[in-house]
Amino acid sequence: MITRLSQLFVRTLREDPADAEVPSHRWLVRAGYIRRAAPGIYSWLPLGLRVLQQVEVIVREEMDAIGAQEVRFPALLPREPYEATNRWTEYGPNLFRLKDRKGADYLLGPTHEEMFTLLVKDLYSSYKDLPLSLYQIQTKYRDEARPRAGLLRGREFVMKDSYSFDVDDAGLAASYEAHRQAYVRIFDRLGLEYVIVEATSGAMGGSASEEFLAVSATGEDTFVRSPGGYAANVEAVRVPAPAEQDASGIGAARPVDTPGTGTIAELVDAANAKFPRPDRAWTAADTLKNVVFVVTGPDGKAELLVVGLPGDRDVDMKRLEAALAPAEAAPLADDDFAANPGLVKGYIGPVSVVDGVAVAHLGAEGPLKLRYLTDPRVVPGTAWITGANVVDTHLVDVVAGRDFTSDGVLDVAEIRDGDPAPDGSGPLSLARGVEMGHIFQLGRKYAEALGLKVLDANGKLVTVTMGSYGVGVSRAVAAVAEATCDERGLAWPRALAPFDVQVLATGKGDEILDAATTLAEELDARGVRVLLDDRKASPGVKFADAEIMGMPTSVVVGRGLADGVVEVRDRATGERVEVPVAEAADHVAALVRT
Amino acid sequence: MITRLSQLFVRTLREDPADAEVPSHRWLVRAGYIRRAAPGIYSWLPLGLRVLQQVEVIVREEMDAIGAQEVRFPALLPREPYEATNRWTEYGPNLFRLKDRKGADYLLGPTHEEMFTLLVKDLYSSYKDLPLSLYQIQTKYRDEARPRAGLLRGREFVMKDSYSFDVDDAGLAASYEAHRQAYVRIFDRLGLEYVIVEATSGAMGGSASEEFLAVSATGEDTFVRSPGGYAANVEAVRVPAPAEQDASGIGAARPVDTPGTGTIAELVDAANAKFPRPDRAWTAADTLKNVVFVVTGPDGKAELLVVGLPGDRDVDMKRLEAALAPAEAAPLADDDFAANPGLVKGYIGPVSVVDGVAVAHLGAEGPLKLRYLTDPRVVPGTAWITGANVVDTHLVDVVAGRDFTSDGVLDVAEIRDGDPAPDGSGPLSLARGVEMGHIFQLGRKYAEALGLKVLDANGKLVTVTMGSYGVGVSRAVAAVAEATCDERGLAWPRALAPFDVQVLATGKGDEILDAATTLAEELDARGVRVLLDDRKASPGVKFADAEIMGMPTSVVVGRGLADGVVEVRDRATGERVEVPVAEAADHVAALVRT
Repeated sequence: MITRLSQLFVRTLREDPADAEVPSHRWLVRAGYIRRAAPGIYSWLPLGLRVLQQVEVIVREEMDAIGAQEVRFPALLPREPYEATNRWTEYGPNLFRLKDRKGADYLLGPTHEEMFTLLVKDLYSSYKDLPLSLYQIQTKYRDEARPRAGLLRGREFVMKDSYSFDVDDAGLAASYEAHRQAYVRIFDRLGLEYVIVEATSGAMGGSASEEFLAVSATGEDTFVRSPGGYAANVEAVRVPAPAEQDASGIGAARPVDTPGTGTIAELVDAANAKFPRPDRAWTAADTLKNVVFVVTGPDGKAELLVVGLPGDRDVDMKRLEAALAPAEAAPLADDDFAANPGLVKGYIGPVSVVDGVAVAHLGAEGPLKLRYLTDPRVVPGTAWITGANVVDTHLVDVVAGRDFTSDGVLDVAEIRDGDPAPDGSGPLSLARGVEMGHIFQLGRKYAEALGLKVLDANGKLVTVTMGSYGVGVSRAVAAVAEATCDERGLAWPRALAPFDVQVLATGKGDEILDAATTLAEELDARGVRVLLDDRKASPGVKFADAEIMGMPTSVVVGRGLADGVVEVRDRATGERVEVPVAEAADHVAALVRT
Repeated sequence: MITRLSQLFVRTLREDPADAEVPSHRWLVRAGYIRRAAPGIYSWLPLGLRVLQQVEVIVREEMDAIGAQEVRFPALLPREPYEATNRWTEYGPNLFRLKDRKGADYLLGPTHEEMFTLLVKDLYSSYKDLPLSLYQIQTKYRDEARPRAGLLRGREFVMKDSYSFDVDDAGLAASYEAHRQAYVRIFDRLGLEYVIVEATSGAMGGSASEEFLAVSATGEDTFVRSPGGYAANVEAVRVPAPAEQDASGIGAARPVDTPGTGTIAELVDAANAKFPRPDRAWTAADTLKNVVFVVTGPDGKAELLVVGLPGDRDVDMKRLEAALAPAEAAPLADDDFAANPGLVKGYIGPVSVVDGVAVAHLGAEGPLKLRYLTDPRVVPGTAWITGANVVDTHLVDVVAGRDFTSDGVLDVAEIRDGDPAPDGSGPLSLARGVEMGHIFQLGRKYAEALGLKVLDANGKLVTVTMGSYGVGVSRAVAAVAEATCDERGLAWPRALAPFDVQVLATGKGDEILDAATTLAEELDARGVRVLLDDRKASPGVKFADAEIMGMPTSVVVGRGLADGVVEVRDRATGERVEVPVAEAADHVAALVRT
């Protein structure tokens, strides 16, 4: 059946939507694929829905191919199972919660680990029933603090989530690998440039996880790669601790006057001016910066945390959030320093020198009982310039392990281009990406919390081990759009385009429209999905709309018709070829099938 | 691809679920098609999901065939559009409401008239863009007071909802008729026995509507039919008022002592004993019964309403609710009569006789200012025995129009088998059904509330007229199950069965399983969808499960194999035929294609 643009429910827009931050969002809205219904919540118009459904087909085929079985859970879920795993609380404000008419608590499911665990518990009881993989393609909800970038970070979105159930670790490893390979095939078919990186597990819990990131300059995630094959989300990079150092030759920590050195740069300048060292200049890396955060747990309780790290690096807020999840962190506001007189902004340090003796200031041992965590680089024996907890004063030769110990390691400093890979595989390079898939070896967390056990071969009850695996289905539409669009509009790969071909009748007169319609019918007869632009509109409007809408191929039936030719255009390359009318249908059908 | 029952995520249950009230619910759960997640909220297991998806395909094909275009709206919707049409309030406790992290109000969409209206307003502006029909197959929410019967009345369910947009009434009529015909094809393909009946529009509003009811003894809706072709939901039956009568020969209303006649039956007995009339006995139809209800509006405000109707009929609560919607009604509780001393239970009447003169008691004119509405049969000139508003006392010869007038007509008395059809097409017969589809001529209600106007051919702005059309997609799964199941389990029609054929390997030995597998492969090669029961289980278990699961055809590969035959069973008829092994695949494939 030919679809006629004159009938299709679509309007292209001449203006960018006001809230569009990224190209995919701009073009999906301008081309009439989606429409905003509320912040982070979108309606799918006919063109967009066709793309979404094609992503669904690809995902479904690849899940079926690994023997996963499709089910469908509700989105409206009772509180109790999520209470049992503590996620009702841990999800904090990201969870949409509501009450029914009887006052019972419900949530809109962000992921379904609990429900799948309970269903399997309900039906299965023996190791003979396993392994088992179940999946669904379903609408999910997350009350994002900052919904943005259209479909890339929405509050209602479509996901494929699947769950594997195995009797032992080897089984989980096999199920995980099967999903990993299925994901490779899915993202290959979607035509995305992607990387598979080590990831953190966040609120999901579990032991190991990997993300599939679509490489994109506008992506929200930052990842690193090394020439030797290391790849990780920056959130998951674990900086190795250097060897401990011999500090026996270093003198006692001593205070120095450093007026007006509230920043690291000022401090370094003052150090080199007032107490230069002979062999080399002081740098920011010689200073120990101490940053104060307010950490709020999912229960709403807030406490202060001080993070100590080399002064040449900032705390990476996303790494910090990943490390503290499900708690959230924010820098202590200037105003709030006043309420904490023990924290002298710009001059905070782990120790104070009292009567010539270094005494703990931060950490569980200090007078403030403030939690103090330090960067992995702050190993015993390293000496630092750091705050003296007195205005305009720093301490020199403060030695970790000798003068102070922290309450633990917190690996949240920014990762930089050129930093060494943790596995020694060379210097890291940073890039950005969009999280398209995430696979988790959950282990037994959910099965334990909800009591999912089966009898093993020896008749003994064992707790099942699980994996959980997600693909952002609606997000994939945006990610592919983002990767393929250009300054003129969308440019779909063949696998996802809502139509294979757009046929444009350009020019007046029945003859042209008749020829275009005939060609569309010939293409339709060859199984090609055709969108016929039969509107009463100028050639310029039709050309522009075809470029915005982004079908991979368009055929212009217009002026050339007098010479017996039509023009076949490739949206992605811009290539244009004149083809005799009589051969056009076969020519285009062949293109579509390549 | 052959599906092996040993791998399929399913368990049949030997026991009925405790909450199963109707056969479809019982069997869908016992056969492992669905599973309860919360009251009125279900998970779809693999078998159930396959049926659901097949219903979706049928609905989608028929909607596409009438040129409706598929879109998909969110389920999580902002409050504002529903506020503009007043449905935010009118839906009362049936609406799931929630707040996001910023405190903004949202709802889970029960239907999407507002959203579609706004989307069309957003994109279209001219009569040339119309007619337009849009549809979606999407998850909907309704916080039912009494979720019951499994999928038949759930709180989260799948619907196909569509909306038509036309510039004038003739256009709406055509769009409505196209949908009506599409629905006929949909329900024909589903194999349902159904009736199309006049219906009320409820919270939807609009002028005319019809329901498609699947005929079912366990259905929640009651409908009537006449030999002459009248058909209506009882909620929509409008009883014609009889002609006014000449009451000039009737004497003044007079009190009679009727001790202990708080019920109509007691009153009729007392009347015939104490003041018989010469020509014929008094019957309940001669009495005017007055029933008191508490009516609660969607805003929570409650007021009393008295309904007067012939004493031989009860108020039909569903007709009452339909008439008062969106308000809800409940009979005044005995205890609450005490708080209303003007209402003498068992002796309530529209007038009191004071000093021999009839004065208004009920209605706007009465001393209680109680709203009083009467049955259409209470026309001027009819005389009644009714309560005197004094214990143990009634009035005789109370004449409507002479002694009292009500505040209006309320047509909510029960409809009975044999009542005349309102259109004179003969006596009505009653039956029950499940609402499978509902089509509404909405008219301009939503377009007016939300400002959807287009320029007509004369360049004048006109308000668009709309239709709205629903199919219960998940409910259809239950309705078909309900119509086809028997005392042994489900029995799917071919169009909806999750598999065409169940092949049972019954008996021990590799030979039988090999032969069954070979047959399954041969069927698969012929495009037949096969479920192979390859489990290590007894023939009895396999036979019982095949009957519970309900594939239309099963093939038993077992004892007969020694004689070179298999047994082909028809689930619905119970017919069994022995077929030579070599011919079995062709034989079964032919059955599937009929």
